Amino acid sequence: MKANVMMNRALSIRTKNKSTPSKGHGRGRGFTFRSLRESVQPELSRKLFRLIKLENDLIHTYEAAGRERTAIATQLSEWGEQTSDEAVNDISDKIGVILSEMGGLEETYGNSLDLSRTHLKMIRDTERSVQPSRDGKSKLYDEFQKLKAKEPQSARLVLLEQELVRAEAENLVAEAQLTNVTRQKLKEAYDVEFTAIIERAEKQIILAKHGRRLLELLDDKALSPGDVRMPYENGAQARQVLNDAEDDLKEWQPEHHHKALSENGSETSKGKSPVEPSA
Amino acid sequence: MKANVMMNRALSIRTKNKSTPSKGHGRGRGFTFRSLRESVQPELSRKLFRLIKLENDLIHTYEAAGRERTAIATQLSEWGEQTSDEAVNDISDKIGVILSEMGGLEETYGNSLDLSRTHLKMIRDTERSVQPSRDGKSKLYDEFQKLKAKEPQSARLVLLEQELVRAEAENLVAEAQLTNVTRQKLKEAYDVEFTAIIERAEKQIILAKHGRRLLELLDDKALSPGDVRMPYENGAQARQVLNDAEDDLKEWQPEHHHKALSENGSETSKGKSPVEPSA
Repeated sequence: MKANVMMNRALSIRTKNKSTPSKGHGRGRGFTFRSLRESVQPELSRKLFRLIKLENDLIHTYEAAGRERTAIATQLSEWGEQTSDEAVNDISDKIGVILSEMGGLEETYGNSLDLSRTHLKMIRDTERSVQPSRDGKSKLYDEFQKLKAKEPQSARLVLLEQELVRAEAENLVAEAQLTNVTRQKLKEAYDVEFTAIIERAEKQIILAKHGRRLLELLDDKALSPGDVRMPYENGAQARQVLNDAEDDLKEWQPEHHHKALSENGSETSKGKSPVEPSA
Repeated sequence: MKANVMMNRALSIRTKNKSTPSKGHGRGRGFTFRSLRESVQPELSRKLFRLIKLENDLIHTYEAAGRERTAIATQLSEWGEQTSDEAVNDISDKIGVILSEMGGLEETYGNSLDLSRTHLKMIRDTERSVQPSRDGKSKLYDEFQKLKAKEPQSARLVLLEQELVRAEAENLVAEAQLTNVTRQKLKEAYDVEFTAIIERAEKQIILAKHGRRLLELLDDKALSPGDVRMPYENGAQARQVLNDAEDDLKEWQPEHHHKALSENGSETSKGKSPVEPSA
């Protein structure tokens, strides 16, 4: 219910967060190894360093979800086997196959998150390398101003000014690199992320739909005491459902998504700018 | 890649698992509290007891994923704020809103898993209650057979036979209840699960698509050293993207899914039986 609709007018996550501080992961840090490691990062890259750590936690969480889902799939199948009900046995085993594929999707998604993370790391590394350039320039500037005030005739002033001009030129390059890398890699990181979310979601829908077809093959008409179930005859159909699921996954393509969008324009039709990426 | 296509001809999870035993969560148990608690379950309900425990682990994992995603969203926004790049600031904050919604979806999904789990619990409870009925019947039967062999003229034989007939009648009812509850609740449990997967997936797709639109609003043309970025003018558009995302989530309906299916029949068109649930 809560997440059904986006938090009313939550047009910034920042303001939203201000009202409920200290909730969530890793805020209000104490003296831990993590915060120690963090504190040796240059100021500029510290927040991104932390973000990259958090992304790593999330990757592990999705890997765990994948493993747990697979364990559930196996357990469901084993339970079905011991019911000595042929229909429950077959259907639970095949639902197990579907669930196990779902688990695989979580693991694949974890891999994509890791790829997204490498883009963020490139921003972090650039931030890290720009910090000394800023520091160097600002140190030279302070030195130059101090000397100029103290000994306006000093011969070193000329040398210092030359050094400062060189440092400013070097820093201009560094800052251009920073803005270029930041914007390009931020886009790449989250494009990978959103693309992976869509792929996982579309494949989950395929699997869940076929999973529902499997459920329909299980006759759940209520029996009276002493009645006997009709013999289970849906084995071939159940096998076909798995074949269909396999075919649909095989045929899935990322393009499918965009094509479908432009064909019926269902979700981007009402007053939105046409900024959907072209590939 | 691995999970791209279903494991070749893996038409049973059970056989697949036989070839790689002892992998995954909780197999090969040692002397833990969990296995102790498990061992006091009647034989019949033990496997389901374990399955329900595993489902609980998975719920906690998705709750963790939700929390971690929200922490990432906040961190991304805070990073953007300190870049002192107005465009990166605005876009990262709004991507944070999208990611935070994604986190909320994982938590909602965890709640649905919990609902699915209550259906499995009803099967487990029925299994548990049927075990004494089976045991009682079989004990009486053994007693009756033994006495008949030892003292064929015993007056107790008649009484025992009456008791046995009553126990058999009671057991017939119990077994009918078991098959009815097992099949109905198994279907309900996984129908809830698959429906929740589809809802989460469809909403994730909505959010990811709007997330991509946000990325397109970030100009990543490479700057030369000394160049200055054009002033950021996409703030209103970015806000509109969040409004659109909010509207799409509000308008989302579970029916949408099935309707879309029957309209274009895209995924169930090739030789599949029409067993899609009607609601």
